[in-house]
Amino acid sequence: MLPPGSVTTPAVLVDAAVLGANLRAMADSAARRGIILRPHAKTHKSAEVAHRQLAAGAAGISVATLGEAEAFADAGIGDIFIAYPVWPDAGRAARLRELAARVRLSVGTDSVPAVRRLAAAQAPVRVLVEVDCGLARSGVAPADAGRVAAAAARAGLPVDGVFTFPGHSYAPGAPGPAARDEAAALAAAAASLEAAGLPCPVRSGGSTPSAALSCGPADGGPVTELRPGVYAFGDAQQVALGSATLDQVALTVQATVVSVPAADRFILDSGAKVLGPDRPAWVPGHGLLPGYPDAVITGLWEHHAVVRMAPGAAPLPEAGDQVTVIPNHVCTVVNLVDWLHVVTDGAVTARWPVTARGRNT
Amino acid sequence: MLPPGSVTTPAVLVDAAVLGANLRAMADSAARRGIILRPHAKTHKSAEVAHRQLAAGAAGISVATLGEAEAFADAGIGDIFIAYPVWPDAGRAARLRELAARVRLSVGTDSVPAVRRLAAAQAPVRVLVEVDCGLARSGVAPADAGRVAAAAARAGLPVDGVFTFPGHSYAPGAPGPAARDEAAALAAAAASLEAAGLPCPVRSGGSTPSAALSCGPADGGPVTELRPGVYAFGDAQQVALGSATLDQVALTVQATVVSVPAADRFILDSGAKVLGPDRPAWVPGHGLLPGYPDAVITGLWEHHAVVRMAPGAAPLPEAGDQVTVIPNHVCTVVNLVDWLHVVTDGAVTARWPVTARGRNT
Repeated sequence: MLPPGSVTTPAVLVDAAVLGANLRAMADSAARRGIILRPHAKTHKSAEVAHRQLAAGAAGISVATLGEAEAFADAGIGDIFIAYPVWPDAGRAARLRELAARVRLSVGTDSVPAVRRLAAAQAPVRVLVEVDCGLARSGVAPADAGRVAAAAARAGLPVDGVFTFPGHSYAPGAPGPAARDEAAALAAAAASLEAAGLPCPVRSGGSTPSAALSCGPADGGPVTELRPGVYAFGDAQQVALGSATLDQVALTVQATVVSVPAADRFILDSGAKVLGPDRPAWVPGHGLLPGYPDAVITGLWEHHAVVRMAPGAAPLPEAGDQVTVIPNHVCTVVNLVDWLHVVTDGAVTARWPVTARGRNT
Repeated sequence: MLPPGSVTTPAVLVDAAVLGANLRAMADSAARRGIILRPHAKTHKSAEVAHRQLAAGAAGISVATLGEAEAFADAGIGDIFIAYPVWPDAGRAARLRELAARVRLSVGTDSVPAVRRLAAAQAPVRVLVEVDCGLARSGVAPADAGRVAAAAARAGLPVDGVFTFPGHSYAPGAPGPAARDEAAALAAAAASLEAAGLPCPVRSGGSTPSAALSCGPADGGPVTELRPGVYAFGDAQQVALGSATLDQVALTVQATVVSVPAADRFILDSGAKVLGPDRPAWVPGHGLLPGYPDAVITGLWEHHAVVRMAPGAAPLPEAGDQVTVIPNHVCTVVNLVDWLHVVTDGAVTARWPVTARGRNT
């Protein structure tokens, strides 16, 4: 935590050394398995972080929206995959043409109608077919990937392969099974493309909880590319799932105790408009307080975090004290602020803009 | 809903006529009861909406943060109450001095240490003491209000009265009891001030679910001022609680169907980064689809809303169709976007900036 007075709370801090270690660890882990790393930049929305990921060995970045792709292209990133079933309406078709003229741009698709619209957009984009590996979100069944890919190829679109998001890794005990589902789905999808006479060089998966378990070419596995996002910063969800330790969390929120209304309760100014309201049942509260391990954030309003402690368990902080909070889900935190305060050796040494903050269309 | 092509989805739309009717209805309702209306502007963060609230009869606005207060002051709003236990650290003390020199500024407090810091800030701010009427968030017990108010008066701060937030109105059946708690707490707090020899002209309460039930001077009740926020726009929570009908919801999200991966499921591009992740157990899903009354948004990721319908119950939309979504909690939606698209007679007639977007410190 920074000394009081360093920032106006609630403020989002990024520990530069921990961030760097996280970026290197994932890059090394992927490289050891022969897997290409294409980190998901929706987590950080930051050109500074994206450039560091590329410097650490990433081949390009993944994003969720065309707006994010435009923001990162403007920041000099040259290889971008929109890992989303983009629907190219007239406005997006024009934007795809503009963007694909200046960066290597790939987009996701999961239907023949979308493929037809993509082809009609006449943008030089590359295509990957999204398959569902168990999350039941978007994506076709793996056996259907060849049908969509063949439609794309017939329409003149270059098809690089398939992708999936094993997001059902987000539960205790789930990363292992999710990684197995990911491998099975990508292998089946690749076989489906090959049965349609199409090569499938890119078989892209990855979520932070399961990323260490994805099986790549060096081990005879089907996963050629990973798109984890949260690993850069870590958060309370990853701590709960065992995919980050407290010491590996690079992003925290510095908050002020604004009220101590009772002997078992204090109130922080880090509400849902900075911590984000995500709270799965398997995390202990609305964020972690490393300085108060017995404390639980039991309630979260827009500008109030209500923290409970057993009476007498430990001294409560006083009004005006500042504390560190680890948010539950870092991707939503970053999208709520305009600046990341970069901390090196206990002091703010830089402020990074959230380059793609709000670029969600 | 707007014709496709009117906006880039996901987009936040505001129906100007419905908004105007909502503003007039609450202003009239408060006036009939002899209650001053000071709407909470954290809901809309919009200077355009704030000016319309003042034109409809509001005496001033409430905000949650000093940053919001500064943004609205810059937009010409002259009477602002920060309904929050502001902790005036050195940075905020300077900002309070600057702001209080140009607008009529009131701030909340709930402790003697905060009062001392406020006095030391030497900003010409007025003070209201926050009391807890049952939410167990910030605020002192009503009987303690006189102690804090007396400390403020001794420190030379002008004390206007007391305020509370009956936020435990947010549950089915809860608005009535919450309004009674609000009245009891404000009456007790006022008595506590009077016992300390201090007048208590302002007894401020209000939440949108309970606002119609607050008992004001015209009915012999203790509530002199109301600070509802959500009433301006309405949302799915208010519909569930009966404090708004579907026709009274002024703010909606226009979304595109990006994928129809199964016979019982379609995917919208309105994820948590526009709808906000709020989901109390007593609303039916992550938002309402008025055009598909049988549909339930069962899953929400950052850029995906997963909508389920019973197979064969009704025709699913097709990929590329656009639909209207009513978010669960409008305050978090507005903070996620930079623009509100104003709709009049079925067309976008203006774009209002979200003046205080992200001004949460």
